[in-house]
Amino acid sequence: MTATPFDSAVLRGHLSDADAAALFTDAAEIRAMMLVEAALAEAQGALGLIPAEAAEAIGRAAREAVIDPAELAEGTAAAGVVVPAFVERFRRAVADPAQAAWLHHGATSQDILDTALVLRLKRLLEQLEARQRATLGALAAAARRWRDLPMAARTRGQAATPTSFGARIALWGAPLLRSLDRQAQLAPRLLVVSLHGAAGTSAALGEAAPALRARMAARLGLGDAPLPWHAARDGLAELASHLAILTAAHGKMGRDLLELARSEAGEARAGAAGGSSTMPHKRNPVGPEALIALARHASRLSGALQEAMLAEHERDGAAWTLEWLSLPQLCLTAAASAR
Amino acid sequence: MTATPFDSAVLRGHLSDADAAALFTDAAEIRAMMLVEAALAEAQGALGLIPAEAAEAIGRAAREAVIDPAELAEGTAAAGVVVPAFVERFRRAVADPAQAAWLHHGATSQDILDTALVLRLKRLLEQLEARQRATLGALAAAARRWRDLPMAARTRGQAATPTSFGARIALWGAPLLRSLDRQAQLAPRLLVVSLHGAAGTSAALGEAAPALRARMAARLGLGDAPLPWHAARDGLAELASHLAILTAAHGKMGRDLLELARSEAGEARAGAAGGSSTMPHKRNPVGPEALIALARHASRLSGALQEAMLAEHERDGAAWTLEWLSLPQLCLTAAASAR
Amino acid sequence: MTATPFDSAVLRGHLSDADAAALFTDAAEIRAMMLVEAALAEAQGALGLIPAEAAEAIGRAAREAVIDPAELAEGTAAAGVVVPAFVERFRRAVADPAQAAWLHHGATSQDILDTALVLRLKRLLEQLEARQRATLGALAAAARRWRDLPMAARTRGQAATPTSFGARIALWGAPLLRSLDRQAQLAPRLLVVSLHGAAGTSAALGEAAPALRARMAARLGLGDAPLPWHAARDGLAELASHLAILTAAHGKMGRDLLELARSEAGEARAGAAGGSSTMPHKRNPVGPEALIALARHASRLSGALQEAMLAEHERDGAAWTLEWLSLPQLCLTAAASAR
Amino acid sequence: MTATPFDSAVLRGHLSDADAAALFTDAAEIRAMMLVEAALAEAQGALGLIPAEAAEAIGRAAREAVIDPAELAEGTAAAGVVVPAFVERFRRAVADPAQAAWLHHGATSQDILDTALVLRLKRLLEQLEARQRATLGALAAAARRWRDLPMAARTRGQAATPTSFGARIALWGAPLLRSLDRQAQLAPRLLVVSLHGAAGTSAALGEAAPALRARMAARLGLGDAPLPWHAARDGLAELASHLAILTAAHGKMGRDLLELARSEAGEARAGAAGGSSTMPHKRNPVGPEALIALARHASRLSGALQEAMLAEHERDGAAWTLEWLSLPQLCLTAAASAR
Repeated sequence: MTATPFDSAVLRGHLSDADAAALFTDAAEIRAMMLVEAALAEAQGALGLIPAEAAEAIGRAAREAVIDPAELAEGTAAAGVVVPAFVERFRRAVADPAQAAWLHHGATSQDILDTALVLRLKRLLEQLEARQRATLGALAAAARRWRDLPMAARTRGQAATPTSFGARIALWGAPLLRSLDRQAQLAPRLLVVSLHGAAGTSAALGEAAPALRARMAARLGLGDAPLPWHAARDGLAELASHLAILTAAHGKMGRDLLELARSEAGEARAGAAGGSSTMPHKRNPVGPEALIALARHASRLSGALQEAMLAEHERDGAAWTLEWLSLPQLCLTAAASAR
Repeated sequence: MTATPFDSAVLRGHLSDADAAALFTDAAEIRAMMLVEAALAEAQGALGLIPAEAAEAIGRAAREAVIDPAELAEGTAAAGVVVPAFVERFRRAVADPAQAAWLHHGATSQDILDTALVLRLKRLLEQLEARQRATLGALAAAARRWRDLPMAARTRGQAATPTSFGARIALWGAPLLRSLDRQAQLAPRLLVVSLHGAAGTSAALGEAAPALRARMAARLGLGDAPLPWHAARDGLAELASHLAILTAAHGKMGRDLLELARSEAGEARAGAAGGSSTMPHKRNPVGPEALIALARHASRLSGALQEAMLAEHERDGAAWTLEWLSLPQLCLTAAASAR
Repeated sequence: MTATPFDSAVLRGHLSDADAAALFTDAAEIRAMMLVEAALAEAQGALGLIPAEAAEAIGRAAREAVIDPAELAEGTAAAGVVVPAFVERFRRAVADPAQAAWLHHGATSQDILDTALVLRLKRLLEQLEARQRATLGALAAAARRWRDLPMAARTRGQAATPTSFGARIALWGAPLLRSLDRQAQLAPRLLVVSLHGAAGTSAALGEAAPALRARMAARLGLGDAPLPWHAARDGLAELASHLAILTAAHGKMGRDLLELARSEAGEARAGAAGGSSTMPHKRNPVGPEALIALARHASRLSGALQEAMLAEHERDGAAWTLEWLSLPQLCLTAAASAR
Repeated sequence: MTATPFDSAVLRGHLSDADAAALFTDAAEIRAMMLVEAALAEAQGALGLIPAEAAEAIGRAAREAVIDPAELAEGTAAAGVVVPAFVERFRRAVADPAQAAWLHHGATSQDILDTALVLRLKRLLEQLEARQRATLGALAAAARRWRDLPMAARTRGQAATPTSFGARIALWGAPLLRSLDRQAQLAPRLLVVSLHGAAGTSAALGEAAPALRARMAARLGLGDAPLPWHAARDGLAELASHLAILTAAHGKMGRDLLELARSEAGEARAGAAGGSSTMPHKRNPVGPEALIALARHASRLSGALQEAMLAEHERDGAAWTLEWLSLPQLCLTAAASAR
C-alpha cells in the first residue's frame, strides 16, 4: 500500500487500470507539458510572433528531451507549481539559448498545466467510451440471453413479484447509455485549450492572441476557449460529477451482484471469486466489492472539484492544489471501475 | 432556526427562495401526487382499462380534495413511505367506493412519488432558467458598462498585471451560460414519468402498459421512460451535480465580491450591506457570504444523490429515504443562490 | 415534504425526534438568546458593571417577553444574522428604555448566538446520552438472551463459520459504549460560554471581563472559555464527527437488520414492518432503512463543519452561515437515529 | 503527478511528508504484517499452542525475509485482499515446511491486516504529536513576541476594532492544544490488536484465545480488544475525523496567512514565497495555499471512513476496500499539513 492503491505494486492490479494510469504519471505530465509548449511555439512561429528557428528548435526539443521528474521537485516545492521549474529545465534542453528564451512566450503557468491536463483527459474520455461501449455490448448480449430466466424481483429487501434476470441486466445498461450521452455533451465544454496569460487578458500575447489560441487549439486537437478558465472551473467539476455518476452506475451493478452472490441467494457467481486465508472453499465477491468501494470513493472525491470552483479572483492557488489532490485519482477510480 | 434555515420564519427571508419553497411543502407534494393519480386514471379511462366513470370521479376528487398532511403521518411512519396512507385517504375523497377502488390501479408507490417529484422538478428548472437568464442579462450589462474600468488582476492572492472590472464580470457569466446548456441537456433524461409497477415489469398494467405510460406522460407534460428507473437514479444524481455546480458558480461570484469588499480592497460594495450588533458603521457582505455558504452546502448534499445511486435490486428503501433527506433542500439551496 | 423531513408534518413522525426537534425551533432559539442576554446582564449587575435595576429589568423581560420569529425576518435578511434585530426587539420588551440600553452591553452578536447554541447542545447531549444508555441496556439484555442462539457468521457476503445472535448483538453495543466515552470527553471542550466582544479581545468589557465571563458561564451551567472561539470552531466540528459516528453505529445495526430480514435470510423481523401500496403481505424493513439513510445523511453534513473551521480572521460570516445550514439538521439526524 | 501528489516525484516534496510516507509503502505494510505474524507465533509458542521451534523459525523468517510487493499482486487481485498471497509467500520464507504450516495459525486475514495497520497508525500518532508540540512551541513564542503588535481585527471581511498579532497567533494554537487532548483520548480506543478469527469468535484459537491475544498485544505494544472490531470500525472513523479536524486547524492558519499576505493587506509574508513563471517579482503564498487545500482534501476523505462503518455482518469487503482507498492518503494529508 502506498498513498492509494493506484500507486501500489500490490494493489494496482486489483484496484487500478493500466491504460488510465499511464496518463497520470509524472512522466506523462511532463511529456504533455512539452507538447503544449511546442504547440504554442509552433503556432507562434507560423504567425510570425516568434522566430521560425525558435519554434523549430523548441519543437525538436519537445520530441527529444527527457526530463527526470526528480529534477523538478525542488523548484516545485518553492513555487507551489511545477511549471517554473519545468520551463527552466526545458529551456536547457533547447540547443540555442537565444531560441530557448522564446519558450513559454506570453503564457502563464496555468495555461500550460491546464492544457496539459486537458490533453490527457481527452485520452481518458476515449478510453472510458471504449470501455462503456464494450460493457454495453456485453450487457445487451446477456440481457437477450437471459430475457426469459425468471428471477424474484426484490423491493426493499423483500421478494416481490417475478421479473427476469434479463430485465435486471437491461436496467444496468440504461444508466451507461445515458452516461455516453452525458460524456458526448460535456466534452466540448471541457476539452478546450487554455492560453490567456498571467491575468487572463492575453495582454502579453498581443492582438494576435485569438488567432494564436485557435491555431494552438487546432494543433492539439482541442476546442478554443474565448474566455479564460483559470478561475472558471465548472468544466472540471462537471467531469468530476460525470465520473462519479458513471462509477456509481457500476457500483449499483456491484451491489446487485454482491446480493445475488450471497450464500442465502446463490443466484450469481461474482466473476473470479476470491480466496480466503482461512476458508479456502469460500468464493468471495471480489469484483462487486471493488465496484462498490470505488463508487463511494469517487463520490467523496468529486465533491472537492465543486469546492475548487470557488476559486477567488483570477487564480486561486489553494483551489488549484485541491484539484491536483483529487482529480487524477478520481480519473483512475472511474477507469478502474469501468474496467 | 428550524432543522434548516429554509423552514425558519427568521431565516428563510435571508436564505431561501419563496418560489422554489412553494414546490417543496407537504401540501405541494400531496397535490402533485393527486395530479399524478388523476393523470393515471384518466389515461386508463381513455384506453378502456378502467371504467370511464371511475376516471372521471378520480379526476374530480383530485381537483377538489384537500388532504391534511398530518392525517398521513401515522401511516407514513408505519410504511416508511407516504403513498399507502395517501392512497387510502385519497380513496375516501372519491365519492363512490366502487370507483375509488380503481385509484392507483397497477401502480406502485414509487411510480407516484417519483412522478410527483419530477413534476415539481420541472417547475424548479423553469424557475432556475428564468433566474439564470435574468442574472446573465444583468452581468452582460455590467460587463459592458465597466469594460474599461481598470482593476488589478489578482493571482494567488497577489496583485498581478491589470485587467478590467468588466472582464471579471464576463468571467462570472461564462459558467452560467454553460449551466444553461447543461440544464437543457439533462432535462430530457430527468423529466420523465415513472409507471412500471411493483417489480418494474409493468405486469399489473398488462399489454397496454407502454401506450398507457406514454399517454400519462403526455398528460403531465413529461417524457416517456421505456425502462423503470425505480433503482436507476442517475437522472437525479445528474440534477444534483448540476445544482451544486450552478450554486458553486454563484459561490465564486460571492467569493470575489467578498474579496473586493474587504476593507483593505474597498473596490466593491456587497449589495445591501449588513448591520452589526455592536459596530453600526460596518457594512457586512451579507449576500456574498450567503452565496459561499450555500455553495458549500450544495456540494455536500449533492454527493448523497450519487450514494443513492447504489440502490439495490428493484427498489432500495434506504437509498430512497436518503434522497428525501437531501434533494429537496438541495433544490432550495440552488434556488436561494440563484435568487 | 418540506426542505427536510424534519420539518414535514408527513415525515417527521418517521424521520425525526420530537425531543430534539423542540431544541431547534425558531422559538427555542429566541428563548435561548434571551436566557443568554439575561445571564450576561445579571452577571454584569452582580459585578456592578451595569445598574442593578437594569439587570433586574432585563431578567424580568427575558422571563416574560414573547417575540414572534417573523418580526425578526427583515432585520435578519439585512444583517445576515438574527442578533441585531433580536436585540432591538428585545430592548422594546424592557419596560424602561434607559435600562434597556444596558442589554447586550459589551457583547457581540456571535457571543449571544453561539452561547445560545451551546445551551441547546448541552440538552441535546443529555438526550442522546439517555437514549444511548437505554439502547445499551436493551442490547445487553438481548445479547444475554440470545447468547446461545446459533447463527451463521457472514464474511464478505458469504456464510462462514458459526457465531451466535447474542455475539452479533454484543458487537452492535461496543461502538455505542465507546460513543459514550467520546461524548463525555468532548463535552468540556464544547459546552463553553462565548463572551469576547467584537474583536475577540473583550475590550468593551473592560478588566472585569474574565470574572464576568466566569460568572455568566456558571449561571448558564457552562464551562468558561479563556480564549474566543468565534473563529476556532474545532469544538463544533468534533461534535459533528461524534454525531456522524454515533449515527453510523446505528446505521451498521440497520444494515445488519436489513440483511437478516431479507426474504432469503428470514432471520429477523425489522420491528414494525412497513406496508406496501400494492403488496399488503410484504413486511418492509422501515426502521433499518431509516437508520441507514440517516447515517449517510449525517456523514455528508458533518463534513461541512470541518469546512467551516477554515473561518478567516476573527469572524467569517460565510463559514458561520454554513454551520446554520448543517448543524441543526445534523443534530436532528443523530437524534432521530438514536430514537 | 501520479494518482496523488503523495506518490509523485515532482510533488511529494511540496505536498507530502517523508516520515509519514515511509509508513505507507508496500514494503512497510509487508514488514508490519510479518511483525504481526511473528508476534502471533511467538505468543502461541510461549503458551504452548504451537511448537516452540515453529515460533522460533517464524520469528527468524520475519526478521530476515524480504518479500517483493510485485510477487503478491496476482494473488491480491484474485482474493481482493493481500493476506492469502502474503501468507503463502511468507511460508516459503520459513525454512522448514512443517514449521511454516504453523504460520497464521487461527488468525484471519483481517486480524493481520488490521493489526499491521494499527502498528503503523501508532507511529503516525507519535509523529503527529511531536509535530504538534513543535508547532505549539513556535506559536507560543511568536504570540509572546508579538503580543503588543497592534493589528486590525477583521470580522466578516471588514476591519473591526483593534487586536494584536500575538492574540491572533494564540488563537491558532488553541485548537492544536485541544487536538492533543483528543489524540490522547482516542488512542486507547484505536491502538488495539485484532485477533478474533474468521467469524470473530476466536473459535479456531481455542480456550486460550484471550490470554493469547493479550500476550500478542503486549508484544506489539498495543492494547487488548476483548471484542472483534472486524466490522466495528468506529475507532478508524474517529481517527479520520481527528485527522480532518487537525488538518482544518492548520487550514485556518493557512487561510489567515493567505489573507494577511494579500497585496492589499501586506501584513505577513507567507514563508518562502513562490515563484511565478511570468512574474518573477511575485511572492506567492505557497505554504498557506497547501494548508488550505490539504484541509479540504482531508475533509472529503474523512467522510468515507464514516461510510465504511456501515460494514455488514462480520466482515464487509466493500467497506474494507473503501478504507484502503481513503485512510492512508488521509494520514499523509494530515502529516503533510502538520509538517
